[in-house]
Amino acid sequence: MAAKQQFRKEKDTFGDLQVPAERYWGAQTQRSLMNFDIGGPTERMPPPLIKAFGVLKKAAATVNTTYGLPEDIAKAIAAAADEVISGKLIDEFPLVVFQTGSGTQTNMNVNEVISNRAIEMMGGELGSKKPVHPNDHVNMSQSSNDTFPTAMHVAAVVEINSNLLPAMQELHDALLEKQKSFENIIKIGRTHLQDATPLTLGQEFSGYVTQVARGIDRVKSTVKHLSMLAQGGTAVGTGLNTKKGFDEKVAAEISKITGYEFVTAPNKFEALAAHDAVVEASGALNTVAVSYMKIANDIRFLGSGPRCGLGELDLPENEPGSSIMPGKVNPTQCEALTMVAAQVMGNNTAITVGGATGHFELNVFKPVMIKNLLQSIRLLADGSRSFTKNCVVGIKANEERIKKIMNESLMLATCLNSVLGYDDVAKIAKKAHKEGLTLKESAMQLKALSSEEFDAKVRPELMLGPEDP
Amino acid sequence: MAAKQQFRKEKDTFGDLQVPAERYWGAQTQRSLMNFDIGGPTERMPPPLIKAFGVLKKAAATVNTTYGLPEDIAKAIAAAADEVISGKLIDEFPLVVFQTGSGTQTNMNVNEVISNRAIEMMGGELGSKKPVHPNDHVNMSQSSNDTFPTAMHVAAVVEINSNLLPAMQELHDALLEKQKSFENIIKIGRTHLQDATPLTLGQEFSGYVTQVARGIDRVKSTVKHLSMLAQGGTAVGTGLNTKKGFDEKVAAEISKITGYEFVTAPNKFEALAAHDAVVEASGALNTVAVSYMKIANDIRFLGSGPRCGLGELDLPENEPGSSIMPGKVNPTQCEALTMVAAQVMGNNTAITVGGATGHFELNVFKPVMIKNLLQSIRLLADGSRSFTKNCVVGIKANEERIKKIMNESLMLATCLNSVLGYDDVAKIAKKAHKEGLTLKESAMQLKALSSEEFDAKVRPELMLGPEDP
Amino acid sequence: MAAKQQFRKEKDTFGDLQVPAERYWGAQTQRSLMNFDIGGPTERMPPPLIKAFGVLKKAAATVNTTYGLPEDIAKAIAAAADEVISGKLIDEFPLVVFQTGSGTQTNMNVNEVISNRAIEMMGGELGSKKPVHPNDHVNMSQSSNDTFPTAMHVAAVVEINSNLLPAMQELHDALLEKQKSFENIIKIGRTHLQDATPLTLGQEFSGYVTQVARGIDRVKSTVKHLSMLAQGGTAVGTGLNTKKGFDEKVAAEISKITGYEFVTAPNKFEALAAHDAVVEASGALNTVAVSYMKIANDIRFLGSGPRCGLGELDLPENEPGSSIMPGKVNPTQCEALTMVAAQVMGNNTAITVGGATGHFELNVFKPVMIKNLLQSIRLLADGSRSFTKNCVVGIKANEERIKKIMNESLMLATCLNSVLGYDDVAKIAKKAHKEGLTLKESAMQLKALSSEEFDAKVRPELMLGPEDP
Amino acid sequence: MAAKQQFRKEKDTFGDLQVPAERYWGAQTQRSLMNFDIGGPTERMPPPLIKAFGVLKKAAATVNTTYGLPEDIAKAIAAAADEVISGKLIDEFPLVVFQTGSGTQTNMNVNEVISNRAIEMMGGELGSKKPVHPNDHVNMSQSSNDTFPTAMHVAAVVEINSNLLPAMQELHDALLEKQKSFENIIKIGRTHLQDATPLTLGQEFSGYVTQVARGIDRVKSTVKHLSMLAQGGTAVGTGLNTKKGFDEKVAAEISKITGYEFVTAPNKFEALAAHDAVVEASGALNTVAVSYMKIANDIRFLGSGPRCGLGELDLPENEPGSSIMPGKVNPTQCEALTMVAAQVMGNNTAITVGGATGHFELNVFKPVMIKNLLQSIRLLADGSRSFTKNCVVGIKANEERIKKIMNESLMLATCLNSVLGYDDVAKIAKKAHKEGLTLKESAMQLKALSSEEFDAKVRPELMLGPEDP
Repeated sequence: MAAKQQFRKEKDTFGDLQVPAERYWGAQTQRSLMNFDIGGPTERMPPPLIKAFGVLKKAAATVNTTYGLPEDIAKAIAAAADEVISGKLIDEFPLVVFQTGSGTQTNMNVNEVISNRAIEMMGGELGSKKPVHPNDHVNMSQSSNDTFPTAMHVAAVVEINSNLLPAMQELHDALLEKQKSFENIIKIGRTHLQDATPLTLGQEFSGYVTQVARGIDRVKSTVKHLSMLAQGGTAVGTGLNTKKGFDEKVAAEISKITGYEFVTAPNKFEALAAHDAVVEASGALNTVAVSYMKIANDIRFLGSGPRCGLGELDLPENEPGSSIMPGKVNPTQCEALTMVAAQVMGNNTAITVGGATGHFELNVFKPVMIKNLLQSIRLLADGSRSFTKNCVVGIKANEERIKKIMNESLMLATCLNSVLGYDDVAKIAKKAHKEGLTLKESAMQLKALSSEEFDAKVRPELMLGPEDP
Repeated sequence: MAAKQQFRKEKDTFGDLQVPAERYWGAQTQRSLMNFDIGGPTERMPPPLIKAFGVLKKAAATVNTTYGLPEDIAKAIAAAADEVISGKLIDEFPLVVFQTGSGTQTNMNVNEVISNRAIEMMGGELGSKKPVHPNDHVNMSQSSNDTFPTAMHVAAVVEINSNLLPAMQELHDALLEKQKSFENIIKIGRTHLQDATPLTLGQEFSGYVTQVARGIDRVKSTVKHLSMLAQGGTAVGTGLNTKKGFDEKVAAEISKITGYEFVTAPNKFEALAAHDAVVEASGALNTVAVSYMKIANDIRFLGSGPRCGLGELDLPENEPGSSIMPGKVNPTQCEALTMVAAQVMGNNTAITVGGATGHFELNVFKPVMIKNLLQSIRLLADGSRSFTKNCVVGIKANEERIKKIMNESLMLATCLNSVLGYDDVAKIAKKAHKEGLTLKESAMQLKALSSEEFDAKVRPELMLGPEDP
Repeated sequence: MAAKQQFRKEKDTFGDLQVPAERYWGAQTQRSLMNFDIGGPTERMPPPLIKAFGVLKKAAATVNTTYGLPEDIAKAIAAAADEVISGKLIDEFPLVVFQTGSGTQTNMNVNEVISNRAIEMMGGELGSKKPVHPNDHVNMSQSSNDTFPTAMHVAAVVEINSNLLPAMQELHDALLEKQKSFENIIKIGRTHLQDATPLTLGQEFSGYVTQVARGIDRVKSTVKHLSMLAQGGTAVGTGLNTKKGFDEKVAAEISKITGYEFVTAPNKFEALAAHDAVVEASGALNTVAVSYMKIANDIRFLGSGPRCGLGELDLPENEPGSSIMPGKVNPTQCEALTMVAAQVMGNNTAITVGGATGHFELNVFKPVMIKNLLQSIRLLADGSRSFTKNCVVGIKANEERIKKIMNESLMLATCLNSVLGYDDVAKIAKKAHKEGLTLKESAMQLKALSSEEFDAKVRPELMLGPEDP
Repeated sequence: MAAKQQFRKEKDTFGDLQVPAERYWGAQTQRSLMNFDIGGPTERMPPPLIKAFGVLKKAAATVNTTYGLPEDIAKAIAAAADEVISGKLIDEFPLVVFQTGSGTQTNMNVNEVISNRAIEMMGGELGSKKPVHPNDHVNMSQSSNDTFPTAMHVAAVVEINSNLLPAMQELHDALLEKQKSFENIIKIGRTHLQDATPLTLGQEFSGYVTQVARGIDRVKSTVKHLSMLAQGGTAVGTGLNTKKGFDEKVAAEISKITGYEFVTAPNKFEALAAHDAVVEASGALNTVAVSYMKIANDIRFLGSGPRCGLGELDLPENEPGSSIMPGKVNPTQCEALTMVAAQVMGNNTAITVGGATGHFELNVFKPVMIKNLLQSIRLLADGSRSFTKNCVVGIKANEERIKKIMNESLMLATCLNSVLGYDDVAKIAKKAHKEGLTLKESAMQLKALSSEEFDAKVRPELMLGPEDP
C-alpha cells in the first residue's frame, strides 16, 4: 500500500499548482509535465545535459558574486549545483525533450531544483524562493536562450572528451595490436567481393586502424566550434541584462570546473540562432558510423562459417550460440555496433533537419538536436568499448584456412607473367578454373614449368608491395 | 543502507553466473547485460515490443497444447504472459536494443521471465527450469528468428491501431472544427511568402485537415504488410521443427488476443530476411512528419507577434511566456511537434539503413528497426494529442488584424481589371505601393472611379472560388 | 567557323532582352537563364515533366474552347503541345531545377515555346505573341501555382505506370523463373552470416520474389494520391479566374490523352501548399531501394569467388574481368543496382526536406522534389531492367559447390537429435568441429551409429519445412 | 538526311564490337554503354572527375618516363591528357555513374580516349593500340582501383578550392558589407517567432556572416584528408606492379599540374576500401546547406509582404512578379538556394549509404559517392554566387517599416523596469496589449511617468548590448 502522496501548493502567473512535496522542482516544471506528455521517461533530457547545466549554474553563481550576488547565496547555489553535476539529483529532472524548442522549461527546472536544494541547505522552506530565488539568483544575468545552448556545448565537449575519444582510442589500440600480430599472415585480397591479389591480414587491419585514427581526428576537430559558448547573449544575442565581461568570465569558470577549454562565442547571434556546430559534430560522428559499419561488416564476413563461410577469422564466443552447433559463433558484437551505426546515421538526419529549421534570433530545435547528438556520442563510445573488449581483442586468425584458400586462388598466377608470358599464364589459369585444379596442378599438366620452378616463382610473399625501382 | 543484494547461481554453457535472486530473468539475460553495456536504461527494448512478446508466448502456448504441451504448463505460461502483457513485469526486461541483431537475447529474456514466473505460480523454484522450461515449453516450436519479427509486427500494429490512429483522428477532428468555425473569415493568401489573392481561414485550414486525413490513410495502408507474421518460419524460414498449421493457428490466436487481424506471412523467407514492411511503415510516418512540420510551421507563423509578426491567429497560452510581455505567447506546442517531426525523419533514415543492410536468411538490424519505428509511432501519437489539446482546440482567429491587413493589400486590385482594364489598374496599384496609400486612396486620387464604385467592386468575398461558367 | 548567332529582341516589364532568333522560348525564359546559372545542363528540368506540361497545355486548350478559346488557336496549341509531348522540342527547355520554387519560369517556358511554335504553324512571327499569346491563350485559366504541381503528378504517374512498374515486373518474373528452376537445389542457410539449417535455393529466391512483388504493390498504392491534380486551384487554391468545372474537365482530358486515370484534387489548398503525395511516393521507392540493396548484396555475396568466396552462384560475365583470372566475374550489375539504391535513399531525404519546408498557400520546393522523384523512378526502372537482363536471367547455380559445402556443414547434426539424443549429437558435432572432420566421420569414429543409419537420417531434404502434425 | 554512321570494328575478350568510327573511345567503353543503360545523359560521370583523370594520366605518364615509358609516348599521352583537362574531349566520355562500382569502365574510357587521341597525334590509326597502348602505356603502373579514388580526390579538391571556396567568400563578403551598412538600424528581435528585445539589423546579419565564415572553415578543413591520394595502391592497396616511389612522385606531379598540394595516402588500404574522406567532406557541405537554409529562410521572411508580411527588407526584383502587383517581389533566389540546400542534404544521405556499404579491399560505391559530392560542391558554389549577385548585394532595409513595428512593440517596456519596478511596468504592458495602445499611450493614461521621462528612458539603442559592469 503506497503512502499517500503529499503535495505543496505553488503558483505561477497561471494560477495554483500542486507539486509533489518532496520534489525540488517547482511550478514551471510541474506545468511542463502537464503540457508535454510526449514520449515518456525514455525521452527525458539526457543526463549529460543536466550535468552541464549544473556546471553552468555553478560557474554563473561564482561569476555573479563580482556583480553583486551575495557570497552565501552563491555558495549554496554552487553546492546544490555540485549535486546536479554528480548526478545525485537526476530524478528531479523529469522533463522531456519534446517541450519548448528553446529548452526554457529545462532551464527553469534547473533553476527551481538548484534554488530549492540551496534553500534547503540554508534551512529555508521548499517553494518559498527564499533566500535563493530561481530567477533572480540562480538564473541571474542569464536567459534560457543563452543557457540552453551553453549547456548543449558543454555537455557535448565533456562527453566527447571524457567518453567518446578514450573509447575510440581503445578500439584504435586494440585494432593496431591485431594489425601487428597479423603482419605475417598472407591472405587472399578481395575486390568486388571476388578473389584478388594477396595482402597480409595485418595490412587489411591497418586500413581499419587508419579509419579509426582519422575518426578520432574528425571528432576532435569539431571541439573547436563546440567549445564556443553562447552564455552572455541572453535573449537575442545582444547581451542585454548582462554586464560586460560576464560572458568571458563564465567561459573561464566553466573551463576551470570541467577541465576542458571553453571560450565565449565571438558572435552570440549565431550562437543562439543556429546550431551549425552541432550539425558539424554530428557530421563527424556520421563519418565514424560509416567507418564502423565497414569495419564490423568486414569482420563478421571474415569470421563467417564455421564451414560454409569465409572463415578467415575466429571471433570470440561471448554467449551461447546454437548448443548443437559448436563453432556457430554469432558475430553479435558486430551486430550491436552496426546497429549503433544505423542509429547514428538516423540521428544525423534528425539533427540536420533541426539545424536547418531555425528562424530569426533563436533556433527552437535545441532539445532534439542535443538529445540526438548526445545519444550518438554515448552509443559510439559504449559501442566502441563493447566491440573492443568483447570482440576485437579476442579475434584470432584462422591461419590454416587463410593459407588453404589463398593457395587455391587462381590470382597467384600473375606471378608467372614475367616468366611465361601473359598468354601461357592465361592458359594455366583457365584450365585450372575449368577443371577445378589448383594452379600448380594445371601448370604441371600443361608442362609449363617444373614443380621446383613453380614453387620458386609462385610466392604470395612477393606480392605484398611495390617493387624496387 | 541498502539491503545486501542476494543472488542465485545459474549456469549456461559458458559456466556459472550470478543472477539477482529476486529476478525472473536467467542466465542468458544476465550474460547479455554483461556483454552489451551500450546506451543504458533509455535504450532498453521498448515496452510495446515486450508486451507483444507476451501476446506471442501466450498464443504459442495455447496452440502448442494441440501439439503436446501439457495443459497445466500452457495455462501457467499464459498466466505469466498476461502479466507481461499488462506491463506488470516490465522491470524484468533490462536488455538494450544494441545486442544481437536478431533480438535473440530478448526472446530468451522473455522465455526466462515467463518460465520463472510460471514456475513460481506452480510452486516451483526460480531458476530450476521445472516444471516450465524456458526453451522446451515457452519457446516450443519457435526460434528467436521468427519470434522477434513476429513481436515487431504485433507491436507495430497494436500501437498504430490503438494509439497513433486515434490520436491522429483527434487532431483531424479538431482541425476540421476550426475549418468550419473559420469558414467566413476572409484573409490574405500568401505564396512565396508574399501577399497573394485572398482565401478564407477555413479554406486554409481545410488544407491541414486534408493533410491529416491522408496521413491517416497512409498509416492505415501500412497495416496490411505489418499484419503478416513471421511465426512458423523458425530458424531460416523453412519452418523446421514446427508442425504444419502451427503458423496459421498462432496468427489466429494472436488476432484473438489483440483484437486486431493478423495472418501468417505467405513467405517466411522474406519475413525473416527483410523488414521492408517496417521500412514501408516508416515511410508513411515520415510523410506524416512532413505534414506536421508544414502545419505547425504555418500555425506558429500565423500566430507570430503580438505586434511585429503576422498576428492572424491567437494561440492558447499554456505556460508563462515573458512575464513582462503580455501577449508573448510562445508557440511551444508547435515547437514540440516540429521536434517530433525532425525525430521521425531521423528515425526513418536509421530504419532505412537497417533495412538495407540485411544478409541472406536473417536481417540482423531487427532491434534498432523496431525501436525507431515504435518511437516514431509513440512520438507522433503523443505529439498529435498534445498539439490538439494544448494548441489546436484553443486557436482563435484575430479577425480584426486579419481584416486590417487584407484590406491594406494591393492584391485586391485584381478585382478592378474587368472594369478599368489592366493598365489603369496597374497604375493604381503602383501609385499605392510607391506612396504607401491604400488602394482606395490611390484610386480616389487618380479619380479612376467613384468611392461607391470602388466599394462595390473591390470585394474579397468575390475572390474565393471559380466563377460560374 | 560558327555562323554568327542571330537574336531577336523581346521585352518584358524589366526591359529589352536578346533571345536567340531560332529559339521558341521568349523573354521570361531568357531572363531565368541569366538569373539562375546554377548547376548547368544536367540540372535541367527533367524531360518527363516537360512532356507532362505538354499534356496539360493540350488538355487545357481543348477544355478552354468551351470557355471561349477560339478553335483554331486551341488546335494550334494542341499541335505544338504534341511536339512537346513527343520530345521533339526538348532543347527548347533549358531552364534548371534551381529556379523559382514554384516552377513559374518553367511554366512560362512552356507557354512561350508552345505559343511561338503555334504562331509559326499559323504563319505568324516568333515573339509577336500573335495570334497565340503565351499567357492569354496557352496559360488561359491557369497559374504557375496549379500547372506545375499538375505536371508533377502527371509526370510521376506516367513514369511509374509506363516505365517503373513494367521494369519491376520484368525483374519479378525473372526472379520467379529462377525460384522455380532452383526449387530442388538444397543449400546451407545462413543466419548472422553463420551456417544454419538448410533450405532450397528456390526458397531463398522466393524471398526476393516476394520483396519485388510487394515493392510493386507499394509503388502502385502511391498512384492514388498522385493521380489527384491541382489544376483549377490557380494562385492560392481558391480557383479564382477559372470557371466552375474547368478542373474536372482538365483532369478528364488528361486521362484521355495519357491513358491513365486522373481526377481533380478534392482539396486544392493541400494540392498547392503541400506535396505529401510526392513524399509518400518517394517513401515507397525508398522501400524498393532497400529491397534491391538486400537482393543485390545477397546475390553478389553468393556469387563471390571463384575460389575464396561463397561461390554458390555463377553470375553472368558481361565484360572483361581480369584477363589473367578466368572466373573473376565482377558482380557489376549488382554494383550498379546498389548504387541506384543509395541514390534513391538520398533522393528520399531531399524530397523529405523539400516537402517539410513549405509555407502557407504554396510549397516552393516543387522543382527539386519532382526532379528527385523522377530521377528515383527512372533509376529504379533502368536499374531493374539492366539487372534483370544482364544479371538475373543469366544466374546459374553452382550445384557442385552448393552440395559440397552443405555436406560439410555441422548444422545437419540436428537431424540426429531424435535418434541419439541431444547430448550425444553435441559430442559428434563438437568433435567434428575441433578435428576438422565431417559429421559422418566424427559419428563413425565415435561409433554413434552405423554408416547406413547415418545416411538414412542425415538428409537435408527432410529439413525444408514443418512436419506433419 | 543524316550521314550514314561509320563504325570501326574493335574487339575485346568477349568478341567483336562496332565502335563509331570517329570516336576515340574503344571496346570497353562501348561494352559498358551496352550493359549499363541506366539514367541517360544526365547521369554521366561528372566533368570535373573526367578532368581529374586527365590530370592523373598526365602525371603518371610524366612519372613513368623514369620507369621506362618512352619519352615520345609520354609526351603524346600528356598532350592528349591536356585536351581531356581542357574539357575539349568531354563528349568522348559517355559512360554513366551507374556502372561498375569501382569505376573501372571510366578508367578504361579514359585510357582508350587518351591512347587513341595520342595515336592520332602520332599519326597512327584509331583502335590499333599502336604506338600508344591504353593499358600498357596510359594505365602503366596503375589499376582502376587506385586511379578512380585518386581522380575522386583530385576532382573534389580542385572544385572546392577553385569553385566553392571563392563563391562562399563572395557571399561572406556581400553579407559582411550588408552587416556594416545596417549597423545603425535598430529592429525588433524575434525569438520563437515572437517579438523580443531589439537588436540592430547589422547584428542580425553578423550571425549570417559568422555562419558563412565558419562554413568556409568547415569546408577547408576537409581538404586535409581529401588531398591524400590512393595512387600507388593498385589492385588491393599493396602497390603490387608499381615501383617504390611511384606513389609519391605522382602526388607531387599532380600538385604541380593543379597548383594544389596533394600527398600520397599514408595507408593505401584505407584509401581503396573506404571513402570516409568523401563522407567527411559531405558532412561539411551538409552543414553549409543547413546554414544556407537558415539564412535564406530568414531573408525571405524578413522580405515578406509588401503589405501583409514582415516587410523589413526589400529584396531585389529580378524578374516579373505579378504585373498587377507592384511590390510583389518573389524571393526566387532564396527559393533556389533552399532547394540547393535540400539537394545537398539528400546527397549527404546517398554518400553516407555508399560509404557505409563497402566490403573488404574495395569500396564499390565510388561513382555514386563522387557524383553526389561534386554535385553538392557545384550547386553550393553556383547557388552562393547566384544568391550573392542576384539577392544579397541588392538587399535594402525598409527602415521606415522596421522603425514603425519596433516602436509598436511592447517589448521595449523592459527599459522601464529599473525606474518603475516590475509590477508597474507589467501593468503598462498589459493595458497596452489589451487595448491595442502603444506603450507610451498606455503609460500616459496610467500616469506612470511623464512624456519626457518616457522618451528619455524607452530607448531601444540602450538595449543593444551588455551594460558596463
